[in-house]
Amino acid sequence: MSPEHATPPRIAIAAAGRHAGESVEIAGWLYNLRRSGKICFPQVRDGTGIIQCVAVKSALPEELFEKLKDLTQESSLIVRGKIRAEPRAHGGYELDLESAEIVQRVPEADPYPITPKEHGIDFLMDHRHLWLRSRRQHAALKVRAEVIKGIRDYFDSHGFVLVDTPIFSPAACEGTSTLFEVNYFDEEKVYLTQSGQLYNEATCAAFGKTYCFGPTFRAERSKTRRHLTEFWMVEPEMAYSTLEDVKRVGEELICFVIARVLEHRREELATLERDVTKLEAVKAPFHRMSYDDAVKKLQSKGSEIQWGGDFGNTDETLLTDDLDRPVMVDRYPSAVKAFYFQPDDQRPELALGVDFIAPEGYGEVIGGGQRIHDLDLLLKRLDENRLPREAFDWYIDLRKYGSVPHAGFGMGVERFVAWMCGLEHIRETIAFPRMLYRTRP
Amino acid sequence: MSPEHATPPRIAIAAAGRHAGESVEIAGWLYNLRRSGKICFPQVRDGTGIIQCVAVKSALPEELFEKLKDLTQESSLIVRGKIRAEPRAHGGYELDLESAEIVQRVPEADPYPITPKEHGIDFLMDHRHLWLRSRRQHAALKVRAEVIKGIRDYFDSHGFVLVDTPIFSPAACEGTSTLFEVNYFDEEKVYLTQSGQLYNEATCAAFGKTYCFGPTFRAERSKTRRHLTEFWMVEPEMAYSTLEDVKRVGEELICFVIARVLEHRREELATLERDVTKLEAVKAPFHRMSYDDAVKKLQSKGSEIQWGGDFGNTDETLLTDDLDRPVMVDRYPSAVKAFYFQPDDQRPELALGVDFIAPEGYGEVIGGGQRIHDLDLLLKRLDENRLPREAFDWYIDLRKYGSVPHAGFGMGVERFVAWMCGLEHIRETIAFPRMLYRTRP
Repeated sequence: MSPEHATPPRIAIAAAGRHAGESVEIAGWLYNLRRSGKICFPQVRDGTGIIQCVAVKSALPEELFEKLKDLTQESSLIVRGKIRAEPRAHGGYELDLESAEIVQRVPEADPYPITPKEHGIDFLMDHRHLWLRSRRQHAALKVRAEVIKGIRDYFDSHGFVLVDTPIFSPAACEGTSTLFEVNYFDEEKVYLTQSGQLYNEATCAAFGKTYCFGPTFRAERSKTRRHLTEFWMVEPEMAYSTLEDVKRVGEELICFVIARVLEHRREELATLERDVTKLEAVKAPFHRMSYDDAVKKLQSKGSEIQWGGDFGNTDETLLTDDLDRPVMVDRYPSAVKAFYFQPDDQRPELALGVDFIAPEGYGEVIGGGQRIHDLDLLLKRLDENRLPREAFDWYIDLRKYGSVPHAGFGMGVERFVAWMCGLEHIRETIAFPRMLYRTRP
Repeated sequence: MSPEHATPPRIAIAAAGRHAGESVEIAGWLYNLRRSGKICFPQVRDGTGIIQCVAVKSALPEELFEKLKDLTQESSLIVRGKIRAEPRAHGGYELDLESAEIVQRVPEADPYPITPKEHGIDFLMDHRHLWLRSRRQHAALKVRAEVIKGIRDYFDSHGFVLVDTPIFSPAACEGTSTLFEVNYFDEEKVYLTQSGQLYNEATCAAFGKTYCFGPTFRAERSKTRRHLTEFWMVEPEMAYSTLEDVKRVGEELICFVIARVLEHRREELATLERDVTKLEAVKAPFHRMSYDDAVKKLQSKGSEIQWGGDFGNTDETLLTDDLDRPVMVDRYPSAVKAFYFQPDDQRPELALGVDFIAPEGYGEVIGGGQRIHDLDLLLKRLDENRLPREAFDWYIDLRKYGSVPHAGFGMGVERFVAWMCGLEHIRETIAFPRMLYRTRP
C-alpha cells in the first residue's frame, strides 16, 4: 500500500492538541451539523470530546460530500484528516476532513429521538440509554467518576484498606421498614444492605482502618429530588478513634475530593454551568456547631423545630444558607440516632454523632460518629430498641474480644456529585437511576 | 506536663522502620504471647502489621508486668516504648516496652474462640467476623484490595470512564433461572444484576471506553469451591472495537494487576505461602488457541468433550496443566454462548468470544468478545432465543442510533484473587462470602 493510502493513526478527540498538524483518524458519532453551501461542518463526538470537522465540497469526492451534508444526528462515522489549531473552536482544534466512512446512518424515517428541542423529564428518563450522550449528562457522569476516584485515592493513600461488605444481609442495620427483601434459596429471605457499617466494625478490628464502597438500598416510598432506591456509599471505619477523628477525616476527604474535581473536571463543570467559586470556597476548617446551637439558630431563623427533633430538608437548607462551606453538627439527642452510637460522657442523653451539612441546599453529605464499645451498654441498647440479641451475636462478639473505641461515617456518592455539579435532582448523578416508579431502562 | 510524661506519637506497625530508636505508641490487640520467667514477649497486631514487644519485669511496675504476663489473646491494649531494629524479629523491629494500657481484657471465662489449634471450616466461617484477624485471612484480603486498586488504576489510566450500572434490573442478561428476585414496591418484581454488560453497551456509545465494577449475583444451586452467590466483577466495554481488542486489553490488564500484586504484596504472598515464581511467569504474550484446537487438545489428553460442548472445570484444568500462563481460547460455537455475540464472518456458526483460562487449575478468569452491532441480526437472535423484544427495546435502540462494532469482557474479582493467593476455595477471597447455605455473619 502506498504511503498516501495508509490509514492514519486513530486518536481520541481529547488528545487532538497533541496531534496538531498531523493526519489522524477519529471514530465517533455525528453530534451536530452546520451547512453553508459548498462547505459543511460535521461536529463529531467520540466520548472523550467533540471536534468540528470542515468538509469542503471541492476537496472531496462528490458522493461523500453529499452523504456528509445530509448525515443524520448520531449516525456513526469515521473521519480522517489533519488537525488544525483553531482558537475560536470549542476545544481549540478543528479537523480538515480528507475522507470519511459512514458506519451506520440513522434513517430519516426513525430519527434519533433526543433532538435539540426541549423534552420532558419522563421522556428523557425513558431514553436514559441515549440521553447519556448529551453534553450535560456526559459531563455529570465524568464528574461522578472523578469523585469516586478521588474518594478511593484518598482512602488508599491514608492507610485505609478496602474491604467490601456483603450486599445480602440477614439483619437490619437501622430498622426493617425500608429494607428490600430478596427471595434466596429454599424459602429463605435475605435483605439488601442499607449500610456496611456493622461489618466495617468487624473489619476495622482486623485492619485498623478500613472502608467499604458499594451500592446500598433503601425501600423508601419517597419521590423527593434527594432519593434513589439504589445509591452508592463509601463508609470508612477506624479502630481506636473517636468523634473528633470522624470530623478530621471527613473534612480532609471532602477537601481532597473537591480539589480533584476542580483540578481535572473544569471543562465539565463549565458545561454544567457550575459556579466554581462556590466549590473553591469550600476549605478547612469547616464550621462546627452543636446540635443545641443548631436548634437555636434554626429557631431564630423561623423554623418550628423543637429540641429533640431531627432536621428536615428545609432545616438543613436554612442552617447553611449564610455559609460558604459545610457545617459539622454534632451531639444529637440519642433518640434520633441509631442504637449503636456512643453516648456523650458529660451528657449521656446525647449521641457522639456528627452530620456534615453542605451549603447551597445540598443537605447532609456525611453522617457518622463514634460507636458503642462497651458490651453491657450495647446489650442494653439492643434490648431498648427491641432488636434480638441472636441476630446481632457476631456484632456483640466485637465488644467481647478486644473492644476498642471506634468511629466512622458514611458519604453518599450521588448527593455529593449533585453538590459538585450544582444539579437540582439526584437522578442525573447516576447512569441508570432507580426510584419508586423507575426501574427501566 | 513534664516532657518525660508526654505521650509519644502513635504510629502504625507498618511504619516502625521509620521510627527506629524513637519512643512511640502503638494501639492494637494481643496476637500472641511468649513468657520466659522475668521477661515476656507480647506480640501486638494493629491491622498494619505485627510487632513483638519486650517486657522486662525489673524495668516495669510490678502490677503492669503481671497484667501483661497473663494477658489473653485478642485483648486490646496500647503499648509505649522504643523501637529497636532486630534482624531476627518478624518485620525486622521490636519494641522495648516502657508502659502499657490494657483497653479491654478478654476474660478467661469467655476466651477468644479462634485458637492456634485447628478448627473446622464451618466453625471458622461462623466466626468470619473474627477469623479475618488471622494472618492468612488478613493477607488474602490485602491482596484482594491490591487487585481491585490495580484493576481500577489500569482502566482509569487507559482512557476508560467508570460508569456504574444498575443492580436492580428489569430484564435478564443470560436467562432467568439463576436470577435473584427482589420484592420492589407495589407487588413489582425486579432482579439483581448478573452483569452490567448490556448497560455498558449503552455507556460505551456515550463515553467511547467504559467500565463498570460492582457486585453481581447468581442464584446457582452450586456448592463448588468456585461459586459464590454474590461476587464482584469488573466489565470494560469499548466502542469501535473487536475481539482482538478484548484479547489485547485483557492480556494487558492481567499483566498490570499481577505486577502490582508482586510489587506491593510480597509479604502477604509469603504469609500465604504462595509460590510467586508461578505469578512471575505470567507475562505477555499469553497462549492463543481456537476452540477447535482446544477440543482436539482436550481429546488427545483423554477428555470426552465433543465439538459443540462447553468446557467444564476439569477440561479447563486439563487445558492448562502444561502451561505457565493463561490461554485465550476463542471462536466458540454460538450455541454455547449468549445471544449477543457477533458471529465470525468466515464461519457464522462460531461466536467471536474469548475466554482467558488461568493456569494452575484456576479456570476462566476473563470471558468476553465482540457484540452484535447489526440491528436485523440482533432481532433475529432475540427471537431465536425467545427473548421478548419489548424487554430489550432500549438495547435494540443502540443498533438503530449510531451502531458500531464494539466489544468487552468481564473479569471476576474473587476467582482472580484466588489465583493470586493460591487459594483452594473462593470463599476466602471476600470478607463475608455468600453461598448456597451461608448468609451469615
